[in-house]
Amino acid sequence: MKLAKTYAFLKKDLSLIEDALEVSVYADQEILNEASLQLLKAGGKRLRPVFVLLASKFGDYNLEKIKNVASSLELIHMASLVHDDVIDNSDLRRGKPTVKAKWDNQVAMLTGDYIFAKALQQFTEIEEPRAHQILSHTMIELTIGEIEQIKDKYKVDQNFRNYLKRIKRKTALLISSSCQLGAIVANTDNKSEKALFRYGYYMGMSYQIIDDILDFTASEKELGKPAGSDLINGNITLPVLYALEDPLIHKELTNLFSNKKQVTSDAIKPIISKIISSNAIEKAKKVSDMYLQKAYESLQLLPNNQAKESLENIANYIGNRKI
Amino acid sequence: MKLAKTYAFLKKDLSLIEDALEVSVYADQEILNEASLQLLKAGGKRLRPVFVLLASKFGDYNLEKIKNVASSLELIHMASLVHDDVIDNSDLRRGKPTVKAKWDNQVAMLTGDYIFAKALQQFTEIEEPRAHQILSHTMIELTIGEIEQIKDKYKVDQNFRNYLKRIKRKTALLISSSCQLGAIVANTDNKSEKALFRYGYYMGMSYQIIDDILDFTASEKELGKPAGSDLINGNITLPVLYALEDPLIHKELTNLFSNKKQVTSDAIKPIISKIISSNAIEKAKKVSDMYLQKAYESLQLLPNNQAKESLENIANYIGNRKI
Repeated sequence: MKLAKTYAFLKKDLSLIEDALEVSVYADQEILNEASLQLLKAGGKRLRPVFVLLASKFGDYNLEKIKNVASSLELIHMASLVHDDVIDNSDLRRGKPTVKAKWDNQVAMLTGDYIFAKALQQFTEIEEPRAHQILSHTMIELTIGEIEQIKDKYKVDQNFRNYLKRIKRKTALLISSSCQLGAIVANTDNKSEKALFRYGYYMGMSYQIIDDILDFTASEKELGKPAGSDLINGNITLPVLYALEDPLIHKELTNLFSNKKQVTSDAIKPIISKIISSNAIEKAKKVSDMYLQKAYESLQLLPNNQAKESLENIANYIGNRKI
Repeated sequence: MKLAKTYAFLKKDLSLIEDALEVSVYADQEILNEASLQLLKAGGKRLRPVFVLLASKFGDYNLEKIKNVASSLELIHMASLVHDDVIDNSDLRRGKPTVKAKWDNQVAMLTGDYIFAKALQQFTEIEEPRAHQILSHTMIELTIGEIEQIKDKYKVDQNFRNYLKRIKRKTALLISSSCQLGAIVANTDNKSEKALFRYGYYMGMSYQIIDDILDFTASEKELGKPAGSDLINGNITLPVLYALEDPLIHKELTNLFSNKKQVTSDAIKPIISKIISSNAIEKAKKVSDMYLQKAYESLQLLPNNQAKESLENIANYIGNRKI
């Protein structure tokens, strides 16, 4: 099943959000305009808007209001990607040159700042103070997650807790906030809001773990960027943490990371092969499945409707996605 | 007269804002915490909070509410400075090492992101949707101003309008917004709000022009960074635009800028001397004075009180400031 099929009934609403995104990033400044549009046109799953819309279906579905929240969250996600590419020195994303590659780090930093500010502008239409608090809290945690990722780079001896805390901040919170904010602006009852928040959190954790697995198992073509990029950048993800339990792999990676200059795409290939042929991928997949299971369980607290079915199908898709 | 003397009666309130800033930037993350504190402790005039407080004095002065606006605006200013230092590759600010110098560009980018997010968190306490709109609009314009500055770097043939538009976005709007937001949260009447906005705008323009003059006329010790930094970075400011009217200076600078690699501190010294000994500084000062005059005029529409006196005194100070 294709992801888009799981929420086919939202097609019209999502296309309105796509239009809103395009209007929103328009800048009366050539470079910002081009850079933002390039980012937007590179596509993406628009998962955060999907979660906002689906969560809102459990309350009063007012598209005008929801549209602002949905596009705001997608913009925050986009802005964080632009800054992310500066940090990871990435030249490709989704098979297209990144802003920092097509222009430079400075333009990428300012494009990110600009899109952040545009996200906030979209959000000013929302009156609930609690929604604003959740949004700013999410942005704060997102940044802390990013800096923790820098701090933990090339650190072979970090624990699982570090990793889980980092992906919670970096990925899961923005997804759980998408669900929660969708619920809040639709005035769902308290119980539904909590269930949706939890679903989003567990989905976000599972999603990021699968992402970290795919970085090893998917092809460069599928990824739209070089395979093994995370490890080349020194990012120790869950499959690596499991693989490091093997003292030989531990020693080999420690040696390689002892001099960052030698961490090239070629030098890392043998280690990547070893990680793939170990049981690390399988173990990481099990952790992802555990979170996915919790996501399903969270859904049980919600009334049955089309949106709930979609949320279940998205979970099925994420659990089995190949890209 | 010292600047702080012009608003001595705000001393207690400003010290509460200083405390709020310190609490606000606290991060449960070592690097962000150190970088943010370093930035905060480097000091600064805290002009934006001063303007917020003074503008609020024309309405219902509720310090709890105003404090959030004041610290939020100072945080946005601080965040923009950190990103600014990345763009200008500055190692010193206010005589202290910048975040990008003490850590690196990546940490500086994320520290800026973090402080932006913290600024928003402070602002969530404010309920007026109009205040949120003004804030996000200001942030958008600020970013456009920054990218315009990059675009216009080393461009010898730019016009005065370019420069004025750029400093409006880069500096004046944040100051006019400080005044306006102070007025809005204090529920001043419409006429006062407009007058305060205008005062802030004209003051901001004048302030930035003086800043651009001081980059040539003040000593390295006074500036806390190398003199002539703007021109070394390729930033064409108002004194330079006037100096470029001399065909000899125009030719010399065009030659120098034809190869950015040759734009060193030493190579630029003779041009700086020529700019200083031309009448460019004087002409730029006159433009600043014109804005200052408009700032005074805007104040005439406000009722007489201690705050108005302070705003006048700040204008006097800015007009004659040596640093």
